[in-house]
Amino acid sequence: MQGLWLEAQRVRVREDVPAPSIGEAIVRVARAGVCNTDLEMVRGYYPFTGVPGHEFVGVVERADDAPEWVGRRVAGEINAVCGTCATCRAGRKTHCEKRTVLGLIGRNGTFAERLSLPVANLHAIPDHVSDEAAVFTEPLAAALHVLDHVRPKDRVLVVGDGKLGHLVALAVRTADCDLRVATRVPRARPILAAKGIATVASDDVAEASADVVVECTGQAGGLAVARRAVRPAGTIVMKSTYRGEAAFDFTRMVVDEVTIVGSRCGPFTPAIRALADGSINPTPLIAARYRLEDGLAALERAAEPGVLKVLIQP
Amino acid sequence: MQGLWLEAQRVRVREDVPAPSIGEAIVRVARAGVCNTDLEMVRGYYPFTGVPGHEFVGVVERADDAPEWVGRRVAGEINAVCGTCATCRAGRKTHCEKRTVLGLIGRNGTFAERLSLPVANLHAIPDHVSDEAAVFTEPLAAALHVLDHVRPKDRVLVVGDGKLGHLVALAVRTADCDLRVATRVPRARPILAAKGIATVASDDVAEASADVVVECTGQAGGLAVARRAVRPAGTIVMKSTYRGEAAFDFTRMVVDEVTIVGSRCGPFTPAIRALADGSINPTPLIAARYRLEDGLAALERAAEPGVLKVLIQP
Repeated sequence: MQGLWLEAQRVRVREDVPAPSIGEAIVRVARAGVCNTDLEMVRGYYPFTGVPGHEFVGVVERADDAPEWVGRRVAGEINAVCGTCATCRAGRKTHCEKRTVLGLIGRNGTFAERLSLPVANLHAIPDHVSDEAAVFTEPLAAALHVLDHVRPKDRVLVVGDGKLGHLVALAVRTADCDLRVATRVPRARPILAAKGIATVASDDVAEASADVVVECTGQAGGLAVARRAVRPAGTIVMKSTYRGEAAFDFTRMVVDEVTIVGSRCGPFTPAIRALADGSINPTPLIAARYRLEDGLAALERAAEPGVLKVLIQP
Repeated sequence: MQGLWLEAQRVRVREDVPAPSIGEAIVRVARAGVCNTDLEMVRGYYPFTGVPGHEFVGVVERADDAPEWVGRRVAGEINAVCGTCATCRAGRKTHCEKRTVLGLIGRNGTFAERLSLPVANLHAIPDHVSDEAAVFTEPLAAALHVLDHVRPKDRVLVVGDGKLGHLVALAVRTADCDLRVATRVPRARPILAAKGIATVASDDVAEASADVVVECTGQAGGLAVARRAVRPAGTIVMKSTYRGEAAFDFTRMVVDEVTIVGSRCGPFTPAIRALADGSINPTPLIAARYRLEDGLAALERAAEPGVLKVLIQP
């Protein structure tokens, strides 16, 4: 089948990507989304060989052990877990010691005609949610996970106005809080403005002006803004990965009793509910759509500064 | 009056240290304890001019606005706060924007014959608690604060077997958990062994082997041990300050969804209760006692590797 193939920091379109194994649910991909993690993987920051991509919506074509799923439109949780290791038994399945992760660790991903996942990973998408909204299920779930750290009336600063920053802002907006988005260069952000979300230039962010800061840039500069913005006894939620090690002033963090929380995946059910009831509409974030055969151009476009979500369609 | 005086990274004994202001409670110091922060201040890592020291027990000599305190033996909270700034009003008084801190920020400390503090900062010490136990009230309060992050049956690793590591271990031991202390060089720690607390050489600490790690070394090496030891979705409690910035792998922290919590001061009431009911006896940690006039020798001794608590007595 057709798919993108990453090997030794080179991506190419292959017509002979191995078909997914039939021991799991086979899903025909309808739309896949490009995440910054995909781009960093291509740049060689993570070792991976295979089909990249972990955001998708698609239709189940085959599920031998659960035929009732065939024909359903689904999104899928990306961690395939063993269920029996100490971490799984302790209820932290997304950290399973033996996990494979869709398009990230030991498992082909979404930039292909088909993918496979355990049936347990699938979530049905309501009929009235479009493919272009449903493809955001996975990143929206991760964005909504931030709300675990937000309390009513909190001053929340989202650092970064890329695709992740936008999506986190749309998610946090559903909570009763005072929200701003910090942008590296001062610029209007129409999608945010349309939702009444203010932006502020990073240089203008005042010291200790936020109860909760969500770092969405993956850059040392963004981390510095977060550190400056968080108030004593406040929280920095880290949503991005970083290149290599970052220098950090832990002394000030201790004196100010700041909490830093690493946050990766989130639960799918609230994300699908928000898409279904219209409280979050991520489709304005779509910057471009590419056919799978033009996948290399899609990745190039997604890597351009300021470009939001790029979709790939087999 | 007599006191130690820190100025331009030099400490000397002065006979003419200014007497404390009479607008507050005046306390005659009975015992003062040397903390690593004092030693780092002397080395110039924090700007401070005046009498250092923030751990003490003493007797109230004068308290014009609250004469009922006169004659009482007390420990004292170290942050003197305004009560009116936004941070105080939000209930985070220890982070008051205008605070002074005993022997640390804008306020003379405990290595002198007398000190002053607001009456609101004082805590009475029960008669049967010795001065040598009561002088640990402040650091024990900070150590007990760690318990906010420990749940029953947790595997807790304390990194560092210095005075702070010892005290945190004695505090954590009172919780129902599986406790170990990591030591940089493999060595027996009789005070810990007497309480049934196991030690482990840092190099032998297994990856992801602790639910909660308490970093008590203030060294990049200790931070690396903490990072290795914490399990996915676990917590690192940072109790120490660091020299300058430390490099840190935030990507792994995000992927593993680790929480890092800066922790400085703790509530005095549980600390005094633990001293009073005997559940924590810190006096075996006392390595040496010095007269105030020999304060320079006290600081030198406290700075020697492996030396636990040094007391200074006016």
